[in-house]
Amino acid sequence: MERHFDQEFSGLKDRILAMGKRVENAIEAAIEGLVNRDQKSLEKVHKFEEEINKNHVEVDEACLKILAKQSPLATNLRFVISVIKVNADLERMGDQAVNIAQNSRLYIAHEPIKPLVDLPKMAAEVRVMVNEALQSFVSRDVDLAKKVLRHDDIVDQFKGKIFDELVEIMSKDGKTVKRALELILIARNFERLGDHATNIAEETIFDVSGKDIRHGPRNSSVAAR
Amino acid sequence: MERHFDQEFSGLKDRILAMGKRVENAIEAAIEGLVNRDQKSLEKVHKFEEEINKNHVEVDEACLKILAKQSPLATNLRFVISVIKVNADLERMGDQAVNIAQNSRLYIAHEPIKPLVDLPKMAAEVRVMVNEALQSFVSRDVDLAKKVLRHDDIVDQFKGKIFDELVEIMSKDGKTVKRALELILIARNFERLGDHATNIAEETIFDVSGKDIRHGPRNSSVAAR
Repeated sequence: MERHFDQEFSGLKDRILAMGKRVENAIEAAIEGLVNRDQKSLEKVHKFEEEINKNHVEVDEACLKILAKQSPLATNLRFVISVIKVNADLERMGDQAVNIAQNSRLYIAHEPIKPLVDLPKMAAEVRVMVNEALQSFVSRDVDLAKKVLRHDDIVDQFKGKIFDELVEIMSKDGKTVKRALELILIARNFERLGDHATNIAEETIFDVSGKDIRHGPRNSSVAAR
Repeated sequence: MERHFDQEFSGLKDRILAMGKRVENAIEAAIEGLVNRDQKSLEKVHKFEEEINKNHVEVDEACLKILAKQSPLATNLRFVISVIKVNADLERMGDQAVNIAQNSRLYIAHEPIKPLVDLPKMAAEVRVMVNEALQSFVSRDVDLAKKVLRHDDIVDQFKGKIFDELVEIMSKDGKTVKRALELILIARNFERLGDHATNIAEETIFDVSGKDIRHGPRNSSVAAR
């Protein structure tokens, strides 16, 4: 990597890490709000999302400036384009956290139907994925990126189990339908957060190896969600 | 726009339009499969998605090549970056169409629970959105892009109505829960297709006007999904 890019790139990495930290904070606040039935935690999610949105615009602008001023080539160019894509994923992860907060708000307005099945476990798994995906991206660590892809299968298994349990509860007692549906939609949002982390991990592998694995054999299962 | 870019850019636009056409075909095949309970239509969705994935890689490569060889500036640079983002949206729209096909396959394996509420209407609305979003992008038509944003509110209303009707059906008869849930997830996928069309329309407005409206006052409702 040429020397005059070093500073710009380390600046971009710092921005992405800070933004990723806010995404993690948003996920954390959303799940805390749901588990502890705490409105204040859920409100925090919106604050984090506002900051994420600000970061989103700033990172895009920083990338455009680097492309315009420095016309990077080869690996440098690929890295800047990867940052633009990761930035888009992080922004949408903020939206997903807000979705979870909104569904949680509707859920906690009523009596709980039963302990939150495996949602907290699924959420914990997704948080690890998000953290590791970003670490793999900024440190160009392909092994860690591959670990993220394996986590995704675990997240999918949680989702399947949560869906089955909630369908059974709803089928037995019509009064639970609305609340159980909120939990199903929350599980779906966590699954989508995991998908975004997967996108970032795949982008890492592409960025480092130049190998586009996005539509390889794994893709059929990725698309299946 | 400088003359030597003209050919490259018109090539990029053609690629995006062809890819968009495949996304529309995939959506069409998915909804036909659901409405006519036709497995063959649903299988077509996977074929279209494979082509979309191929296009995805090709468009990314074409953009990287233009950036590397021509180091475009100002509006030209902004346009290439917009194509990279729209390309990512189109690829994920292919995934959503596959999701719809998979949920539809599960749904049509059993007796229908009742006419498909407003799903076909919602799907028709989303198809128009997708078509107009792409038209607005390639023809740099900000008015058409703004029309797409208004469509999105109608799609959201459909989703709300479909959710309410299905929750009522599930609450009354536990035997309908599994099938109704498939329809809810399908409605959710159509909503997400509309979100992607909205992203493309917003990208159009950003590309043409240089004005980033992504996190303006409209954002609170965008994030709410």
